[in-house]
Amino acid sequence: MTAPTAEPPSAVSTGLLLSELGERRIVAEMLEPRYRTVPSFGDDCAQLGSDRVITTDSCGAALVCSLGETDPVHTGWLLATINLSDLAAAGARPEGLVVNYTLPPETPARTLSRIMDGVDACAAAHGTRVLGGDIGEGREMRLSATAVGVCAHGGPDGTVRRLSRRGAVAGDRLLLVGSPGHLWGAALVFHGFAEVTEDEHREMFDRACRPRAQLPAGGVLATQGLARSAIDVSDGLYAAIRSLCRANGLGALVRTDVRLDPVLERVCERAGVHPFQLAQTWGDWCLLVAVHPDDVVRTRGLLAEVGTQAREIGELTAATGRVLLDDGGAEPAAWDGIDQERFSSTSWRGVGIRGALDRMRELSGSHPSG
Amino acid sequence: MTAPTAEPPSAVSTGLLLSELGERRIVAEMLEPRYRTVPSFGDDCAQLGSDRVITTDSCGAALVCSLGETDPVHTGWLLATINLSDLAAAGARPEGLVVNYTLPPETPARTLSRIMDGVDACAAAHGTRVLGGDIGEGREMRLSATAVGVCAHGGPDGTVRRLSRRGAVAGDRLLLVGSPGHLWGAALVFHGFAEVTEDEHREMFDRACRPRAQLPAGGVLATQGLARSAIDVSDGLYAAIRSLCRANGLGALVRTDVRLDPVLERVCERAGVHPFQLAQTWGDWCLLVAVHPDDVVRTRGLLAEVGTQAREIGELTAATGRVLLDDGGAEPAAWDGIDQERFSSTSWRGVGIRGALDRMRELSGSHPSG
Repeated sequence: MTAPTAEPPSAVSTGLLLSELGERRIVAEMLEPRYRTVPSFGDDCAQLGSDRVITTDSCGAALVCSLGETDPVHTGWLLATINLSDLAAAGARPEGLVVNYTLPPETPARTLSRIMDGVDACAAAHGTRVLGGDIGEGREMRLSATAVGVCAHGGPDGTVRRLSRRGAVAGDRLLLVGSPGHLWGAALVFHGFAEVTEDEHREMFDRACRPRAQLPAGGVLATQGLARSAIDVSDGLYAAIRSLCRANGLGALVRTDVRLDPVLERVCERAGVHPFQLAQTWGDWCLLVAVHPDDVVRTRGLLAEVGTQAREIGELTAATGRVLLDDGGAEPAAWDGIDQERFSSTSWRGVGIRGALDRMRELSGSHPSG
Repeated sequence: MTAPTAEPPSAVSTGLLLSELGERRIVAEMLEPRYRTVPSFGDDCAQLGSDRVITTDSCGAALVCSLGETDPVHTGWLLATINLSDLAAAGARPEGLVVNYTLPPETPARTLSRIMDGVDACAAAHGTRVLGGDIGEGREMRLSATAVGVCAHGGPDGTVRRLSRRGAVAGDRLLLVGSPGHLWGAALVFHGFAEVTEDEHREMFDRACRPRAQLPAGGVLATQGLARSAIDVSDGLYAAIRSLCRANGLGALVRTDVRLDPVLERVCERAGVHPFQLAQTWGDWCLLVAVHPDDVVRTRGLLAEVGTQAREIGELTAATGRVLLDDGGAEPAAWDGIDQERFSSTSWRGVGIRGALDRMRELSGSHPSG
């Protein structure tokens, strides 16, 4: 039994709107005081019973629908991936999804059918399925889903192996697990910043349209006890690193010399974009994990065995709250990253895709690829 | 692994809109072909693993917000109840809720706070809590939640005791579990059809604002193996009976001589509304269950022990698809009930609250209380 706890008077009693608060203050001033006693508050997934996790996420139309890929199948795929990615960040195996669709009455039946095709195909590609759902009417499309996962029991004591945001210490190395940059690489191509061959186009848009959750990697990291903390990169690398630092009272030093998949390296060169600018975007559903320095090689090896790349991109530091970028110059500088705050006009949503691409190219000058 | 199965060409290939299809054809032509192999397809809850169930439901503002009770706390309470009611229909004990809120940016923080107060209070009143959630922006408020429940293991063989829509046979008696009529009784009062004392007003609006899911009753029915099939009355008695008949290939004979709680009997008399017209409404989250004729007395007794009323309202018949009303006249007549189909202009939503009340009074003439 839980009774709602008292909230600080600030946000609620002063008559502020959600747009005046922004996501971070909503979380800090409204959700945390109310729900901080819930186990795993702040993690990608909530604990459910002793060995399960549960998560819910919603989405509107997928970004690729604004990049010439207008088939709603991609939005359905995305809906499943964003939820399964939270399970990956907990190191859990998916047990099933339930879906909740709000659609305008004037939606063509075919649109709903294609959304379901995408959800079902994505679920099947990740070894799971839709168990149930609800469909209702609304003025705009809004799709949400809930995923439940089962955590592995490890060792002779049967401890539940659940990954969490908390547990990292200063000196831990940051690994970016998965292959970042395909979605925003596709955006660079669509907006004419780089020409690509037919094969290159197919490879990038294939990844951009059908991003995979890092479930095999999450499973390995959890069962092997290798990730001291983990989070999925749902809002970009900057937001993920900041969240990981906040959860552990740490800072971070991030290197910009990250290498991307070959096709993306070529796109970056043609578009005049520093690969780090692509690596720090969102939409590819990578995991960000912290591992002990001695475990980096073994971790990368085990992840390679399940077909997953892991790039070492920096380390956690004791300088609480400071996130620095090391671009090979004399001194690391504070990272003024792109923020993705909901309920805020300062996020990327305020500038649009084209604005975000312009900013990416603009920043590439200050971090030359060397 | 599930691959989407082929759909009949009708709805999707002919370019129909969801509003042209309506909820029933969406289910029959789009969802059933795709998901009929999912265990418990069509039930209030989906099976999750061996002994759990999961359900998701969404809502906009609660109807009571149009009856002078404008505090968003009632919408939060409703959101939790509608999901917990599905667990009740499965006979499961709640393990937790996750919530997914879409809100316009111009929503006052206080509104979100009151919604959460309602969800948290309702969850606590039912012995459970919110485990996690997601908040995003949209043009209109849309709240959804997912509830997970655990089913009891019964008997020496440890069989999972899960209630389902299927399992009833002709001759089974229909019990309406819970106390129907409070929400629409409150609507009659609010619209001036009946005057009530202050105490009567408080009693009715208390129930209308804070409807309870029938979790204790569902638990008893499941563990004692008494309900051969069960469904919650989320869309009115007519829709619930039709669904139960369809799931079991049966018909039903429903008696109109149902008695309501005393305060509602008085409201009916003053408003010139037949009690059956209130009993067949929705919003009170009753369960409709089918029990063997020999089990009716024992079932009512056991439910009374957990403080729950159960009214015998008729029986299931072998006349597949025929739902008849017996109002004490010479011959039972076909029940032309109020339908609550989503994505359809013919549902109550098309006529509004006042229109639905007028219809209720108009029909009361043809079914005199005798």
